[in-house]
Amino acid sequence: MAREMLRQGGRSARIQEAVHRTVQELLKNMDRGEITVPMIADKSGVTPSTIYRRWGDLSELLADVAVDRMRPVADPEDTGAMTSDFEAFILQYAEEMSSRVGRALLADVLGSLEGNAPVKCCQYTYHHLETLRERASARGETPFDLGEAVDFVVAPIVYHILFGDRELTPDYCRALVARFFGK
Amino acid sequence: MAREMLRQGGRSARIQEAVHRTVQELLKNMDRGEITVPMIADKSGVTPSTIYRRWGDLSELLADVAVDRMRPVADPEDTGAMTSDFEAFILQYAEEMSSRVGRALLADVLGSLEGNAPVKCCQYTYHHLETLRERASARGETPFDLGEAVDFVVAPIVYHILFGDRELTPDYCRALVARFFGK
Repeated sequence: MAREMLRQGGRSARIQEAVHRTVQELLKNMDRGEITVPMIADKSGVTPSTIYRRWGDLSELLADVAVDRMRPVADPEDTGAMTSDFEAFILQYAEEMSSRVGRALLADVLGSLEGNAPVKCCQYTYHHLETLRERASARGETPFDLGEAVDFVVAPIVYHILFGDRELTPDYCRALVARFFGK
Repeated sequence: MAREMLRQGGRSARIQEAVHRTVQELLKNMDRGEITVPMIADKSGVTPSTIYRRWGDLSELLADVAVDRMRPVADPEDTGAMTSDFEAFILQYAEEMSSRVGRALLADVLGSLEGNAPVKCCQYTYHHLETLRERASARGETPFDLGEAVDFVVAPIVYHILFGDRELTPDYCRALVARFFGK
C-alpha cells in the first residue's frame, strides 16, 4: 500500500512536470487563447481526461503553471534599514508585476476561480514582507504591520496593474511607501 | 457608403447581442472551462471566425460579456451625508464583488490581457465615486480625493476578493472607510 502510494506520487509528479513544461513551451510560441487541453495532452503524452481530472479545466491549469513560475528565487535585498528595504522591495515588485510577463502571469492566476493559485500567489508576497519584518526586528527596528502593508501599499499597486487605470511610476510607488511610513 | 456603414453597424450590433446572449445562456448551465468558441458560434448563428475576428479569443469575449453585466443600473444610495454615502457604497460594493457571481465576473474581466474590459470595469467604480463627490460638493461638504479612495479603500477590498487572503467582513470594510476619513 505504501509502495503503491509512493509510485502514484512519482507518476503524479512526472505528469505534473511534463504538463507544466508543455504549457510553458506552448506559451512561448502562441497566445493563451489558442492553447487547448487536447493540444497540451498530446504534447505531454497524457490523455485529456488526465488533465481534466487533475486540474478541472484549462484556466485552473494555466493558473497552476503561472503561480509556479511566480515562486520567488531569492529573498528581498537587504539595504540595512527597514524603510529602504521596504521601498526597494515594493519598487521591484511593481516593476516585475507590471511587466508584460507579470501581467500575463497575474491574468492567468486570477482567471481561475476554483484552485488555490491566487492564495499561493499572494503568499509569496506575504512571505517576502515577513522576511523584511523579521530583519527589522533583528536590527531592533519596530516592524511594520503586515496587513496594513498589503492594504495600503501592495493592494493599490496590484489594482492599478490589473485595471490599467493609472500609470505605475516609481514616484507613485515611493509616495505610497512614504505615506505608509507616515513621512 | 453611409448606408453601408449603417448597415454594418446594425449587423455588428446584432452579432454582438446574439453572441453576448449565447455566452450568458451557456454560463447559466455550464462551467466557463467547458465553453468553446465553436459552441458559441453555433448557438449564435455566426461563424467561429466572426468571433475570433471581433474578440480575438475566448477570454476577450468572456471579459467583454462580464463587463457588460457589471454595468451599473442605479446611482449609489443617497444617505444625506458624504461619509455615510461612502460607507454604504463600499459595503454594497464589497458584498456584490465578493459574491460568487461577482468573483466570476472579476475573474472573467481580469483573465483578458488585450481588451479594455478591466479599464471599463473600474470606470464604473470611478463613476460612482464621482457621483458621491458631486453630491458632497452640492451639500457644501469637502469631497474626498478620488484617487485616494481607490487606493486606500477600493483596492484593498478588491485585492482580498481576488487573492482570498482574508475574509471580507463588513467590520473590516467599515474600518477601511473610518481610517480613510481619519476617524
